[in-house]
Amino acid sequence: MSETPASSVPRRVRDASEAEILDRLLPRYAAARGAEVGPGDDAAVMIQLGDRYVVTTDMMIHGPDFRWAWHTPFELGWKAAVTNLADVYAMGARPTGLVIALAATADTELTALEELADGLTAACARLAPGCAVVGGDLSVSDTFTIAITAFGDLEDRAPVLRSGARVGDVIALAGDAGRAAHGLDLLFAEGVDAAGVPNADATAALRAREPELVAAQLTPNPPIPAGIDAALAGATSMMDVSDGLALDASRIARASSVALDLDTAAFAAEPNLERALRGGEDHALLATFPATSTLPEPFRAIGVVRAGAGVLRDGAPLTGKLGWDPYTAWDGQLG
Amino acid sequence: MSETPASSVPRRVRDASEAEILDRLLPRYAAARGAEVGPGDDAAVMIQLGDRYVVTTDMMIHGPDFRWAWHTPFELGWKAAVTNLADVYAMGARPTGLVIALAATADTELTALEELADGLTAACARLAPGCAVVGGDLSVSDTFTIAITAFGDLEDRAPVLRSGARVGDVIALAGDAGRAAHGLDLLFAEGVDAAGVPNADATAALRAREPELVAAQLTPNPPIPAGIDAALAGATSMMDVSDGLALDASRIARASSVALDLDTAAFAAEPNLERALRGGEDHALLATFPATSTLPEPFRAIGVVRAGAGVLRDGAPLTGKLGWDPYTAWDGQLG
Repeated sequence: MSETPASSVPRRVRDASEAEILDRLLPRYAAARGAEVGPGDDAAVMIQLGDRYVVTTDMMIHGPDFRWAWHTPFELGWKAAVTNLADVYAMGARPTGLVIALAATADTELTALEELADGLTAACARLAPGCAVVGGDLSVSDTFTIAITAFGDLEDRAPVLRSGARVGDVIALAGDAGRAAHGLDLLFAEGVDAAGVPNADATAALRAREPELVAAQLTPNPPIPAGIDAALAGATSMMDVSDGLALDASRIARASSVALDLDTAAFAAEPNLERALRGGEDHALLATFPATSTLPEPFRAIGVVRAGAGVLRDGAPLTGKLGWDPYTAWDGQLG
Repeated sequence: MSETPASSVPRRVRDASEAEILDRLLPRYAAARGAEVGPGDDAAVMIQLGDRYVVTTDMMIHGPDFRWAWHTPFELGWKAAVTNLADVYAMGARPTGLVIALAATADTELTALEELADGLTAACARLAPGCAVVGGDLSVSDTFTIAITAFGDLEDRAPVLRSGARVGDVIALAGDAGRAAHGLDLLFAEGVDAAGVPNADATAALRAREPELVAAQLTPNPPIPAGIDAALAGATSMMDVSDGLALDASRIARASSVALDLDTAAFAAEPNLERALRGGEDHALLATFPATSTLPEPFRAIGVVRAGAGVLRDGAPLTGKLGWDPYTAWDGQLG
């Protein structure tokens, strides 16, 4: 380390003990309404109201999932929370708690970890009041990694699975289609230096020009609490759109043994139809409802379930790449 | 990649889609008794019998937590499961499910991921029948990382916390003290090449000489189901010993505002008293019981709770380094 801290207060992960770091982070997490015991014991203790709860886990890894040149730590914490909360709501459950396994590089500043904790807390406060971080694990790694596991209470509702779509159901979407991908396209095109490497100065200029599209990618704010309304309204299937609308629709189609026919007229307002159909990471909710249902706000109809298989577009098979596979899409050279 | 697969069957993570990898891994996970919905939807759905469940998360990171030259993938999966199951049992809960966030390097062979899944399944079958992997996330990373979150049902028992030890209670231990650390010492001393770098050939020779001590480190098999018996027997505090007996005892002491006085006569059979007191990773259960309790098998008395603070040794303060802090102990140069 070339810099010397001005005082004895540790500045970076390599200078601090685990206990010192936790002393700084734990006060930044809100109390979870459903937690009888929060961080600090071998495990958290959650109070369960209904007889079923849901559990989901999702990672953010430096390289394939985020780059520091684009993200503030607060934004990273926000997004890591949202991707997990969306999976809980997509089951029709109410998020009750998160645990976070955090592996920071040794040179990470402790203030960055504090800001990351603030982002987690803020996302929960905005999208899942009463839900908060109830436990975690902290380690060092050569690759900055966040693995969050979220859980939620079904409150005696039946879970809304991917497998329940029926012929004749209305396909509906709550949230954006393609805006997060638009933001990512801008970051790859303009948030980089001349060599194509993510660059903070270029990103700052881009943010000033396109704050909303960049925010759609970095701090998604999807209307996911509507997942509970969807379950109450009788949604027959639901998932959150993380890998692309068409790709995720194909998963409902396969699980339900039906075809999902998307109506392109529903996307007339989108600047780029292909991006709306195939772009990922909006974390909108994609659901199917009986044709007689009144769609809960803010769901809007975007198609109909038909006999058959796969995803259709105005009745014809949708061809080409349906969405985003982080394995094949990741260029490992871009750090 | 310099090698070409002999067939079109993908051999390594970089050659396979996420779906192809999951198709190979999911059949290797047993069905969890408490899961209504397992892997494949946005979240798993767990059936809850009591009104409270526990959640804990723990990572294994290449470098600070394991080195491939020492571990088979099966052993790594086994240990990752055990470290989490121990935390569930240490609350007095019964493990019901795991979710695994797995970030593999691009050159990881798919057979290694299969063996890792087998190790998870085997550890659950051995130490927590009915518990299994119910979900996960799969990604690529420059650093091989496993983050497991485990949850368990308290079955209407009160959780056994760190904060309940009372003056006069018996301190008891179920499991080994120092054997895992002994195995690690051997690996660092003899499972390395001349430059001190972990080495598979040297490790094979060491395993042949000291199979049990190496296994204590790589495939711990602690009697953690006794955590439920301890809860039923009225244990006043409990935790699993992951960072060293004395260090973990100091955590109970602090949380309970008491002193834990360890009786060195209880460790007379140990080849190295200091290692027994300060070595980590045995994942034995450390608990306190009312003096009138009959200790459940295989707990054995190792001391008494006194008024005061911290950890004592035969009545005198235990000084020096109490255990293992992965932050300060890790030499990042040993990969």
